[in-house]
Amino acid sequence: MIKVGIVGYGNLGKGVSLALKKAPDIECVGIFTRRDASSVNPLVDLKVYPTSCLNEFKNEIDVLILCGGSATDLPQTTAEYLRDFNTVDSFDTHAKIPEYKEKLNRVAKESGKLAGISIGWDPGLFSIARMLFGAVLPEGNDYTFWGKGVSQGHSDAIRRIPGVKGAIQYTIPKVEALDLVRSGKNPTLSAREKHLRECFVVANDGADKAFIEKTIKEMPNYFADYDTVVHFISEEELKEKHSKLAHGGFVLRSGNTNGDNSHLLELSLKLDSNPEFTGSVLLSYARAVAKMAKEGHSGVVTVFDVPIKYLSPKTEDELISTLL
Amino acid sequence: MIKVGIVGYGNLGKGVSLALKKAPDIECVGIFTRRDASSVNPLVDLKVYPTSCLNEFKNEIDVLILCGGSATDLPQTTAEYLRDFNTVDSFDTHAKIPEYKEKLNRVAKESGKLAGISIGWDPGLFSIARMLFGAVLPEGNDYTFWGKGVSQGHSDAIRRIPGVKGAIQYTIPKVEALDLVRSGKNPTLSAREKHLRECFVVANDGADKAFIEKTIKEMPNYFADYDTVVHFISEEELKEKHSKLAHGGFVLRSGNTNGDNSHLLELSLKLDSNPEFTGSVLLSYARAVAKMAKEGHSGVVTVFDVPIKYLSPKTEDELISTLL
Repeated sequence: MIKVGIVGYGNLGKGVSLALKKAPDIECVGIFTRRDASSVNPLVDLKVYPTSCLNEFKNEIDVLILCGGSATDLPQTTAEYLRDFNTVDSFDTHAKIPEYKEKLNRVAKESGKLAGISIGWDPGLFSIARMLFGAVLPEGNDYTFWGKGVSQGHSDAIRRIPGVKGAIQYTIPKVEALDLVRSGKNPTLSAREKHLRECFVVANDGADKAFIEKTIKEMPNYFADYDTVVHFISEEELKEKHSKLAHGGFVLRSGNTNGDNSHLLELSLKLDSNPEFTGSVLLSYARAVAKMAKEGHSGVVTVFDVPIKYLSPKTEDELISTLL
Repeated sequence: MIKVGIVGYGNLGKGVSLALKKAPDIECVGIFTRRDASSVNPLVDLKVYPTSCLNEFKNEIDVLILCGGSATDLPQTTAEYLRDFNTVDSFDTHAKIPEYKEKLNRVAKESGKLAGISIGWDPGLFSIARMLFGAVLPEGNDYTFWGKGVSQGHSDAIRRIPGVKGAIQYTIPKVEALDLVRSGKNPTLSAREKHLRECFVVANDGADKAFIEKTIKEMPNYFADYDTVVHFISEEELKEKHSKLAHGGFVLRSGNTNGDNSHLLELSLKLDSNPEFTGSVLLSYARAVAKMAKEGHSGVVTVFDVPIKYLSPKTEDELISTLL
C-alpha cells in the first residue's frame, strides 16, 4: 500500500479525500490542517491532525498531497514539507512555475525527496495535450479554451466593488471561435474572440446597479478586453443556481503535415466538479511520485517527466493487454 | 543531431520522410529497402540503400524507423534489426503486442538496445488517452470510436469477392452513439451501435451485383455484425473520390467522482492523411528513443513508458515556460 497524507482541507483536499475511495492501493494516514483540528469534519472516515504533528509521521507517509492555494500557501510551505516528505501539488500560477521549480529543486537535491508540481487539469492534463500535440504535429497552432466554468479570481474582483453583496463569474468559450479552429483555418484570435465573461451579481439594497455594471465592464485586465454580460439576481438565486463548481475546456491543435493535408487534434474536458476531478488527478500523480521515489528518483517533476504507466494501480502487463 | 534510418518506403515510410522536414534536430541517413533500391523514388531528397547494406551503418544511425507492416514484416524483422540498432515501429496487432514485446525484450537484453513499439495513433495517442483517462477517473467507462476512415483489411476482404474489380470501405462512428456517450449515460454499446460500414464497390462488367452486396453484408467477422451500406460506383469515381487516406476517431471516458458528479474526457483526431500523421508521430518517438538510449535505457518501451518531454526538440525549460 502507498501511504499518503492530505495537507489542507478546503475544496481540493475534500476532492482528494473522496478520490481515495477509488484507489485500492492507497491508504491515507490522515488530514493535516493549520486550523483547529477538531473543527474539521472530513467527508470520509479519516483522522485529522494539526500540521505541527507532521514530524511524527516522517516514516509513515510516502507522499504528502499539498492542497493549499497557489497565491500564498504553496510558495511558502512546499519547500518546507519537501525537506522531509515527497510531495505533490497543484501549483497553478503558470508564470511563476519556473521560479517555483528552481526553488524546490534546491531543497530536493539536499533532502533526496521527490516533488511532483503543477498537477491537475491546467496545468496538468491540458499541458500534456499541448506538449504532445505540438510534438507530433510540429507545424500548426495551439488553442486553449476554458469553460464553461467559474473563474474564482474574477468573481473575487467583482465582490470587491462597492455595493456588491455577492457575485460569481463564468468564463465561456465562444462557439464561433471553437468552430473556426475546428475548421482548420488556424485563426489568430483575440481574448475577446475566444471567451465571453458572464457575471451574476447580487447588489446591496439601494446600490447603484448602473455603476456596478459599468465598473465591471471597464475593469482593466479582468473584463475590459472581453465581451462581458452582467445579470443582477437575488441572493437566493445565487445560492440555489450558482453553487456548483463545474468547469472544463478544450485544447486544440490544428496543423499540416504535407501540402494541404491538415489534421485536428482535440482534448476536451467537461467536469461537474472542478475540485473533485483535480483531486482525483492529484491522487493518481501521488501514486506516480511514490513509485518513482521508491525507484530512486529525486528532484522536481512535472507531467512532462512522469511516464503515465505510474499513474495506474494496474500492472504493466495489464495496461498493455487491455489499454494499448 | 539525431541520426535516423527509414526501413521500408510504403505509405508510412513516405509519411516519415515528409515529417523529417519539420524536425530540425533529426538527420536522415537514408532509406533502406528490400526492393531494388534504384526503383524507389523518395518524396524528399534522401539516399536509398538495400537493407543488406544496413550493417555498414551500425555506428551512424541512432534509431531505425521501421515502416513495415504488422502482419508479416515487423514480427519477422524487428528482432533482427534490434541486435544492432535502436528501433521504433508501429506494430498495431493489438492482441499480439504482449508476445511481440516479450520476444523483443529478450533480444534487447542481449544487445543493450532500445525498442519503442506500437507507436502511432492507435496504438499510440489513443492508448495514452485510454490509460491516462482511466487513471485520473477510475470509476467510469471507456469508449473508442474509429473513423471516418478507410479500413484496409475490410477493403481487401471485399476485393476478394468474385466479380469485384475494386473497393474501398469506410468505418464511420454513429453520431447517436457518440452523443449517448457524451451525455454521460455510460451506455453499453454493441459493434453495430457504434460503427457503420460504408462500402464503395466497382463491379466487373456483367457481375451479379445483388450477389456481391449480399456476400459483403453477410460476411462473418467483417460485416455481419454491422449495419453495412453498399454503393456500386464506376472505376473513375473510385479513383477520383476515394484515394485520400483520411482517418481519425474518438476516445471518450465518462465517469463519476462522488455521487452524481460526472465528468467527460474526450480526445478526438481528424486526420487528412493517416500515413503522414502516423509517420509524424513515429518520428517524434524516434527522437525520444534516441534520447532515452543515450541516457542508458535499453529494452522495450511503449507510449506508457516514455516521458513526453523526450518527444519534443525543445528544451525542458522552454517546454515548462511555454506549454505547462
